[in-house]
Amino acid sequence: MYEVADPADPRLADYVALTDVELRRRKEPAEGLFIAEGEKVIRRALAAGYPMRSMLLSPRWLDAMRDVIEAADASVYVGGEALLEGVTGYRVHRGALAAMARKPLPPPGELLATGRRLAILEDLVDSTNVGVVFRGAAALGIDAVLLSPRCADPLYRRAVKVSMGAVFTIPYARLEPWPAALAEARAAGYTLLALTPDERAVPLHQVPSAALERCALLLGAEGPGLSPRALEAADLRVRIPMARGVDSLNVGAAAAVAFYAVTTR
Amino acid sequence: MYEVADPADPRLADYVALTDVELRRRKEPAEGLFIAEGEKVIRRALAAGYPMRSMLLSPRWLDAMRDVIEAADASVYVGGEALLEGVTGYRVHRGALAAMARKPLPPPGELLATGRRLAILEDLVDSTNVGVVFRGAAALGIDAVLLSPRCADPLYRRAVKVSMGAVFTIPYARLEPWPAALAEARAAGYTLLALTPDERAVPLHQVPSAALERCALLLGAEGPGLSPRALEAADLRVRIPMARGVDSLNVGAAAAVAFYAVTTR
Repeated sequence: MYEVADPADPRLADYVALTDVELRRRKEPAEGLFIAEGEKVIRRALAAGYPMRSMLLSPRWLDAMRDVIEAADASVYVGGEALLEGVTGYRVHRGALAAMARKPLPPPGELLATGRRLAILEDLVDSTNVGVVFRGAAALGIDAVLLSPRCADPLYRRAVKVSMGAVFTIPYARLEPWPAALAEARAAGYTLLALTPDERAVPLHQVPSAALERCALLLGAEGPGLSPRALEAADLRVRIPMARGVDSLNVGAAAAVAFYAVTTR
Repeated sequence: MYEVADPADPRLADYVALTDVELRRRKEPAEGLFIAEGEKVIRRALAAGYPMRSMLLSPRWLDAMRDVIEAADASVYVGGEALLEGVTGYRVHRGALAAMARKPLPPPGELLATGRRLAILEDLVDSTNVGVVFRGAAALGIDAVLLSPRCADPLYRRAVKVSMGAVFTIPYARLEPWPAALAEARAAGYTLLALTPDERAVPLHQVPSAALERCALLLGAEGPGLSPRALEAADLRVRIPMARGVDSLNVGAAAAVAFYAVTTR
């Protein structure tokens, strides 16, 4: 355990400029790391088998994290709130950060072989939305998530936090090339259901049960929705019945409704 | 139309310190006003019949709002972004604010007489959550919302914004005294369904159809959930089937799932 006082200390390089989304988007996958923030999320990352590289704590977290510190085979740096803010670029309210090592993503085929209900996300570039969708997927019994290449990184700090750590427990993979690789999901026996506000689509509660037996829900970003090519690649277009003239639900709520609909029929 | 340059101009009193939640929580109902922010929300407030008291715009919004300005029987104040920030206390990204007059809330009995599916919210003190729940209620065909006395004001700026204006289109009322007044809903023929994570509750997709014919969904805040007294007052406890060991959904997603479940069976 080391006390640190200099925000430029090279041992803290993993924690520099956490609010610089562009920088972190490149740095973290390139260096095989991600940041877990807050006691609960750090514990969940460890429980999911991610190796710890180091921790950076404010002194008042030492007690609560004692068992984690003792079990960790990693350096622990302790600094005041000003130090944490100086390094990361923001006030670290949760006072506990861990730099964790990434694990290799499984090939999509591995997830397709064992799952029954999947979510496939197209171009959800917003980390918060990716986190919310993972949280809903975990709560509602979705087995795995497949991501188009442009989706935000589920291990980006904000996604991890919003998901309450669900990004650690639900297996996920990138599906490439997009959208051609959707054919792999169909070949593995999944019915591809594209969620759309289009009124000609089938209401979720009227989708034939056979189509839900083994299915993958395609979800696009709020606003643009699924691309024409993704819609084209689906077996069936489905919709949440909406009252007339009302804005669609946000993507987190829409995803939760769709997950509920396909897992409880 | 008046140009304004002094943040202390008494004609701008309606717009002072918009980020001071405590102040606004007292001031707005007491003075019968609320603030609509952004072109879309202002237009929706007008379409819903709320009278306009005044508008405060940055110059670049004059064009887009020309028809609103011409139709409005209210003073329009124009000031630069620094003036807007000086008055309100924050950077007004949407550049258009309107002070609107409140309308008297209907008595709960009026909403109970005409609706078929209601949401009843207990102590949702967070404005964002109230807004999200209204947005979901509007999208998924809930007829009206009843609020316990401690619920946040649906017309508070943040709730209005997050709801996308759904707080204008869904009728709502306060239900008092709480929870004794729940008896009014039952007397009006509603089955009271209490949403809870309790594993002994009936999964929503297995609730007998008869109980959904005319029903009111009771929702509590994330974390504490419904109070024992509210649970006690319900006819049936219902739950969203959750995967084991997973944190519950956030209240917006949980509400959307429950609304979907009761409106599509």
